[in-house]
Amino acid sequence: MTPDWIAVDWGTSACRAWAMGADGAVLAEARSDKGMGSLAPEAFEPALREMIAGWTPAPVLACGMVGARQGWIEAPYAPVPCAPDAFETVKAPVSDTDFTVSIVGGVSQAAPADVMRGEETQIAGVFAARPDFDGVICLPGTHTKWVQVSAGEIVSFRTAMTGELFALLSKSSTLRHSIGSGWDDSAFAEAVSDALARPEALAARLFSVRAEGLIHGLDPGAARARVSGLLIGAELAATRAYWIGQPVALIGETGLNSVYSRALAAQGLIAESLQADEMTRAGLALIRSRKEIHA
Amino acid sequence: MTPDWIAVDWGTSACRAWAMGADGAVLAEARSDKGMGSLAPEAFEPALREMIAGWTPAPVLACGMVGARQGWIEAPYAPVPCAPDAFETVKAPVSDTDFTVSIVGGVSQAAPADVMRGEETQIAGVFAARPDFDGVICLPGTHTKWVQVSAGEIVSFRTAMTGELFALLSKSSTLRHSIGSGWDDSAFAEAVSDALARPEALAARLFSVRAEGLIHGLDPGAARARVSGLLIGAELAATRAYWIGQPVALIGETGLNSVYSRALAAQGLIAESLQADEMTRAGLALIRSRKEIHA
Repeated sequence: MTPDWIAVDWGTSACRAWAMGADGAVLAEARSDKGMGSLAPEAFEPALREMIAGWTPAPVLACGMVGARQGWIEAPYAPVPCAPDAFETVKAPVSDTDFTVSIVGGVSQAAPADVMRGEETQIAGVFAARPDFDGVICLPGTHTKWVQVSAGEIVSFRTAMTGELFALLSKSSTLRHSIGSGWDDSAFAEAVSDALARPEALAARLFSVRAEGLIHGLDPGAARARVSGLLIGAELAATRAYWIGQPVALIGETGLNSVYSRALAAQGLIAESLQADEMTRAGLALIRSRKEIHA
Repeated sequence: MTPDWIAVDWGTSACRAWAMGADGAVLAEARSDKGMGSLAPEAFEPALREMIAGWTPAPVLACGMVGARQGWIEAPYAPVPCAPDAFETVKAPVSDTDFTVSIVGGVSQAAPADVMRGEETQIAGVFAARPDFDGVICLPGTHTKWVQVSAGEIVSFRTAMTGELFALLSKSSTLRHSIGSGWDDSAFAEAVSDALARPEALAARLFSVRAEGLIHGLDPGAARARVSGLLIGAELAATRAYWIGQPVALIGETGLNSVYSRALAAQGLIAESLQADEMTRAGLALIRSRKEIHA
């Protein structure tokens, strides 16, 4: 199998690679749990070679935390406002000349201070797939990004630690005793609405989930949905200036997109959902064409 | 050393015991890191006997998480509004008749759902030490409590998970890379004020601490003070109805009392600080006298 080039999405906890044909078709896909978080700089090349063993070597373009200071090699941030043409790319050191590896840098904002790494590539994917899109792109995840885009540029953005807070609260805090598997749509919707109505009450409302478990026997799945709803509602309150009255596109895992869609729909906003992997590949292809990165 | 009775404060992570004289004097003190969280029900008695070895056995009155469902024996919650007379006490099972152990139950609130366990005893201590106090008692800690008291009764209360969130964020989240030891008073004050002015922005402001570390080299001690300030500011916003225009007494560790004092002072409120251990002992003594718990 001889790809034209190889697209790589290398995050903190996992790595994905796609063998790309000249026409943009995906010829093969590989996945590894060797994320940036578990690799020393010299371990990236062997991990990548192991993933794409069986593919004829081809130029690699990678995005994500692989370009962080603790990654393979640091790829600098481009400051907003910026278009994909302005994204930095850095060649990673490799032991042989059979392939080259280029890493896409992130995007930064001076005030309020903020950074992204990986999401800029998915946003470039939206510019490629939907060149007419002006509005707001929301990328839900560990660190959810709300990004204002206009005329093919990233204008400004804001990050909320919603996914990481949910993981910490549901796995490592006192609330873990009250949270179980399962889900309750109406508990979620009510919590989003409560949080938007009085976002300042978040810290107190979170503990109430534990107390309701103790004294009213709150269902563990409802508790899970409620904590998620309180955090997403608080995030929507924090980012209201981004999404209110704007066209919104969601880029994330299907399940997360659907949770955010429902929360936004309750605010009267119909968001369109885009598939994260597709946007990553489309973004890497766009950056590759603009940067004329070749073997 | 022959105490009249033994006061015990048994929390999740530690246990303290005081040998009390008939006149209220502390004759001796013992401490153990065998908290409720690390003990099976049958392990409480040996742990207590080990702590007070050398003291002549005397009736024990204990408060705190020792009375939780996962503790030595469950001591029921008394619903608000309630005075210390209404606090439940439960005899713990012991292997010999040389002493008795009574455990004070917590206090619950149906709506908004909330619970306390241990704090009710410190509040009883305020009733004993300051019978004229009407207003709000704030007990900062892992789960900070704001408690409205009037005429010797607990009227209503609210818990914020501020201390637990701070520990999770500073030790287990992405922010740990930007947070170090040290402190910056002005960063703290500014963060409290920012959080009170726009509490809904919490989730986004937290991530900014990481971004400021990455792109502006934010000092690790200032980052620590800022995260603390953002969380305490959000808590003050959530509990504003409790403290605004009220006499406030703080019961906590000296350092934590001083952090909360400064945050409240910036809102024009002079809080008085009470020492947590003293209030615990005074509260246990009051409950003992009211309940006539004897060997």
